[in-house]
Amino acid sequence: MHSDPIAALQTLIASVRPVDTAAMAAAHARQAQLTKPSGALGLLEPLGERLAGVFGSERPHPRGVAVIVAAGDHGVVQEGVSAYPAEVTPAMVANFTAHTPAGQGGAAVNAIARTIGAKVYVADVGVNAELPAHPALVNAKVRMGTRNLRRESALTPEETVQAILAGAALAGQAIAEGADLLVPGEMGIGNTTPAAAITARMLGAEVKAVTGRGTGVDDAALTRKQEVIADALARRASSAADPLGVLTDLGGLEIAFMLGVMLRAASEHRAVILDGFVEGSAALVGVALAPDLKDYLFPAGECAETGHAAQLKALGLTPMFSLGLRLGEGSGGVLAAPLLLSAAATLREMQTFAEASVPDKKE
Amino acid sequence: MHSDPIAALQTLIASVRPVDTAAMAAAHARQAQLTKPSGALGLLEPLGERLAGVFGSERPHPRGVAVIVAAGDHGVVQEGVSAYPAEVTPAMVANFTAHTPAGQGGAAVNAIARTIGAKVYVADVGVNAELPAHPALVNAKVRMGTRNLRRESALTPEETVQAILAGAALAGQAIAEGADLLVPGEMGIGNTTPAAAITARMLGAEVKAVTGRGTGVDDAALTRKQEVIADALARRASSAADPLGVLTDLGGLEIAFMLGVMLRAASEHRAVILDGFVEGSAALVGVALAPDLKDYLFPAGECAETGHAAQLKALGLTPMFSLGLRLGEGSGGVLAAPLLLSAAATLREMQTFAEASVPDKKE
Repeated sequence: MHSDPIAALQTLIASVRPVDTAAMAAAHARQAQLTKPSGALGLLEPLGERLAGVFGSERPHPRGVAVIVAAGDHGVVQEGVSAYPAEVTPAMVANFTAHTPAGQGGAAVNAIARTIGAKVYVADVGVNAELPAHPALVNAKVRMGTRNLRRESALTPEETVQAILAGAALAGQAIAEGADLLVPGEMGIGNTTPAAAITARMLGAEVKAVTGRGTGVDDAALTRKQEVIADALARRASSAADPLGVLTDLGGLEIAFMLGVMLRAASEHRAVILDGFVEGSAALVGVALAPDLKDYLFPAGECAETGHAAQLKALGLTPMFSLGLRLGEGSGGVLAAPLLLSAAATLREMQTFAEASVPDKKE
Repeated sequence: MHSDPIAALQTLIASVRPVDTAAMAAAHARQAQLTKPSGALGLLEPLGERLAGVFGSERPHPRGVAVIVAAGDHGVVQEGVSAYPAEVTPAMVANFTAHTPAGQGGAAVNAIARTIGAKVYVADVGVNAELPAHPALVNAKVRMGTRNLRRESALTPEETVQAILAGAALAGQAIAEGADLLVPGEMGIGNTTPAAAITARMLGAEVKAVTGRGTGVDDAALTRKQEVIADALARRASSAADPLGVLTDLGGLEIAFMLGVMLRAASEHRAVILDGFVEGSAALVGVALAPDLKDYLFPAGECAETGHAAQLKALGLTPMFSLGLRLGEGSGGVLAAPLLLSAAATLREMQTFAEASVPDKKE
């Protein structure tokens, strides 16, 4: 579309339009006529109404579910912020695309996706290794991992834009291949560090309040991680008023990629299911760039990572479950997809009291 | 099997055997080897291990999901305990089996079941109306609704046993037709009154602590409902030590039927997904009769009805979500099925660190 990446990104951001409030109002009115006590479907009812807004119909009919797992590495792992070695990132990418007796992929997100027939897309946007070509792996590599955000800007502005547009492109492909519910997911050893840094900066929050143990660091490493983030924030100048600057300063490539997925999904009036804390950091940047994005986002569960609740509160969104997940990969987002499909299905397919000749509440 | 219903029930109760603890231990050990940080799948991990115990395999593979909706009426509606007229019960049975543009059934449970291909069985175990024969309706009618539990025993012991065995029979059919996850559901205007009465008696709880608004009664009707339950409990002699006596005293037929579904599912080593408060009252009776039943029960969500949390606490079970549902019909149970299928799928299909050549946590 655009040979100029900056212009392409501006067009993408501008293409995130408000949801269809007339469809939402019609859905709300329909909800009250369906054969159930008013409000008896709890949170499914407002979720269904929001899906009506996203899909522009009082009887929304989302079908395909796709999870797009973006993988990237982080220079900041040099600072000892993760419990796992960086070699896990390429190994897990191989795991996402491996042939197993059950089908493609031996990671949690693959197993969960198979239960509902969700498609899994895997993209290398910044793994710090040369990955062998694989038919199930999208090569969207921007660079071999980010720079160490403590010492320098994690990305250049050009790299940030390139990663966002790569996410947007793959989301466009997933939509063209049938996805109505898109789950951005991630794999990247060390990525809760930039996610916490972004969250602290975007929310103006204390570092300790939004920095957790990630894959499970001990107390000493958690303290070190908090110090690294505080130091990085003290050195990096971009303010919350410059969300792309924050993302460029702190990274990571998979966070930028997921932001692109979200913007493209919203621009094509598809719903985005938000998994966990790293996804939440991308959403904070996204909503700062395109405030209407918020209404396309559906948080899955409140994950166990410190700071996720603060993200959801800032976004004004209520999660669907609290299973204590802290895995990433988009796994929680895929788990939540059936709940959204049901929220839409009840709104779309239930009969009204009049259609079913069911007496309504006594007056 | 037995011409004597009492003997048949005793056999059914005795056939609920402990889950396979060796399979659970093997699953627990396997869980630690899978390609994820330890505990990162949160509640899914112990749920998967319990499914291993139910299905007797460290790699459990539940497939079909069935919801069995039992319908019955309640003499106690004469006391003004419900916000809806009793005519809703037969009308909703017709709704469960109606031809609609989307398929069979226009109720919430039908719409939700269609999203995951779950089968819906509908049984009339005690609707206070002559229902026209319908190929999708199982006629298991014991009587035209229960007696008014405030004034007299809701059921006779023979009626109670008949309803339990009818539930067991339909569960047996569902299992024969492929169900591995069974969701007992219910429809019966007024049925939160016997459910609350059973809960108060079985838990030794204050009536007010376990009696809620059901489909939405106002303050005056809630007070009346609590008085009716307290009065009934004062007049009925059966103690918690006689669970079948409590069920006979208080009803209802669909509660007894769901108890039969649970016992049969457990006896055939299938998992039971518990929806809401009325199901919970059947589970309390069931666990009192067959303590090993507890390990076959998987509560879906904490429903919005007062008293449900107390039931779950007494059962020692943790729900999967908190969507604020208060509909019944088994709707919440079907919503939870994909979460259980995923708990099993991750345990079964994920690769181990060794299989995937993924480095484990740093030591």
